[in-house]
Amino acid sequence: MSAKIRLYVEHPLGQGQSVHLTREQAHYLFGVMRLAVGAHVALFNGQDGEWLAEVVQAGKRGGELSCTEQSKPLQLPPDLWLLFAPIKKARTDFIVEKSVEMGAARIVPVQTEFTNSERVRQDRLQAHAVEAAEQCGGTFVPEVTELQRLDRMLDDWPQDRQLMFCDEAEVGSALRLAENKTGQPWAILIGPEGGFSEKERKRLAALPFAHVVSLGPRILRADTAAVAALTMWQQAFGDWS
Amino acid sequence: MSAKIRLYVEHPLGQGQSVHLTREQAHYLFGVMRLAVGAHVALFNGQDGEWLAEVVQAGKRGGELSCTEQSKPLQLPPDLWLLFAPIKKARTDFIVEKSVEMGAARIVPVQTEFTNSERVRQDRLQAHAVEAAEQCGGTFVPEVTELQRLDRMLDDWPQDRQLMFCDEAEVGSALRLAENKTGQPWAILIGPEGGFSEKERKRLAALPFAHVVSLGPRILRADTAAVAALTMWQQAFGDWS
Repeated sequence: MSAKIRLYVEHPLGQGQSVHLTREQAHYLFGVMRLAVGAHVALFNGQDGEWLAEVVQAGKRGGELSCTEQSKPLQLPPDLWLLFAPIKKARTDFIVEKSVEMGAARIVPVQTEFTNSERVRQDRLQAHAVEAAEQCGGTFVPEVTELQRLDRMLDDWPQDRQLMFCDEAEVGSALRLAENKTGQPWAILIGPEGGFSEKERKRLAALPFAHVVSLGPRILRADTAAVAALTMWQQAFGDWS
Repeated sequence: MSAKIRLYVEHPLGQGQSVHLTREQAHYLFGVMRLAVGAHVALFNGQDGEWLAEVVQAGKRGGELSCTEQSKPLQLPPDLWLLFAPIKKARTDFIVEKSVEMGAARIVPVQTEFTNSERVRQDRLQAHAVEAAEQCGGTFVPEVTELQRLDRMLDDWPQDRQLMFCDEAEVGSALRLAENKTGQPWAILIGPEGGFSEKERKRLAALPFAHVVSLGPRILRADTAAVAALTMWQQAFGDWS
């Protein structure tokens, strides 16, 4: 028994558990996807793994599912944060989507000196993260935080968390991640498209927990850089090996 | 002297060389970007590196630039092809853009058994490749070919070209690229979002020049997979190290 439709729900999941649908979910399952009573859906809530559930009641404004069996255990991503400076709307959405697919545990939009965006729509980005998790078969949805100021985050940085910092001015510097730091919490910082300021660059380079890496000789857009950096990290320290 | 605007031209470049602009280029430089006589632009043609050029004549329908000095030597990417099964328009555009940024030498849309697209707009994709090269600071524009049938490409495959083949069914298989094959021509094949057919999978796995790699435990969209695979390859064999 497999189900093609995956749905994130904010509801406990378990053997025989009933799940009541919101109006929006009912519209999606019964209005858009045309499911009927007896159909199967895969549910996950970020905590209980993935469960197959059968439609037991289908209405225009709501409905009920009943969990039949666990189809996947909970798989938490590594303890990795992805920090990025928000850019144009579509590309910001892409960074969130790609961070979920690539297995970041937390997504943090940061304001740098050269970031144009004064605010982000956290709720919209969080909804994107949910959709990406539904799509990529994950059982976990990373939290997308509100916009943080990079300088303040660095003031309060947890000292055991390593920081991989991708600087396009660092063309040619080798990746020096092999040294160590497996099993520790990490963060990846993707700079704004205008680059870091001289002050930020100096501060970052001097931090004892920061590791500068190069992403090759061409200039990457921020969304490309995010995927490339996540690939490097997952191969070296994460759940890809 | 540096120039912010980078323009790809189909014209020889060299010391003192005059470059006549097309109507479209003149519109962009003088209409959109508001450059005037005396302004500087960076030009590249995929063969002669990057040249700074000064505007010597600016009109609505044309104009003339004069090359003053070479600002970058020609940097060819490694001999790497990126093969991908076309998907929805926006994501196909992204795959082309990202392949250019990441340093593929040739971009080949392929038709697999589960590819929906019967044709691609090669001219539009090639224009995207030009734009991406202008943006990423490259001096080379990869050729985007017409849509090829995967089975026919494999029939005529050049035997010295290694093929990295990313199969989402291969969850858990380790990257076994370290073994060798540096300095050889390569290709990366990104499967369609519906996956390869059983027949294609068997054929690919049996090819002596094919290397299956895993892109982690989550399902990646094709554009994410392209960047991740290019990152792996560039780190192992390309110009990132």
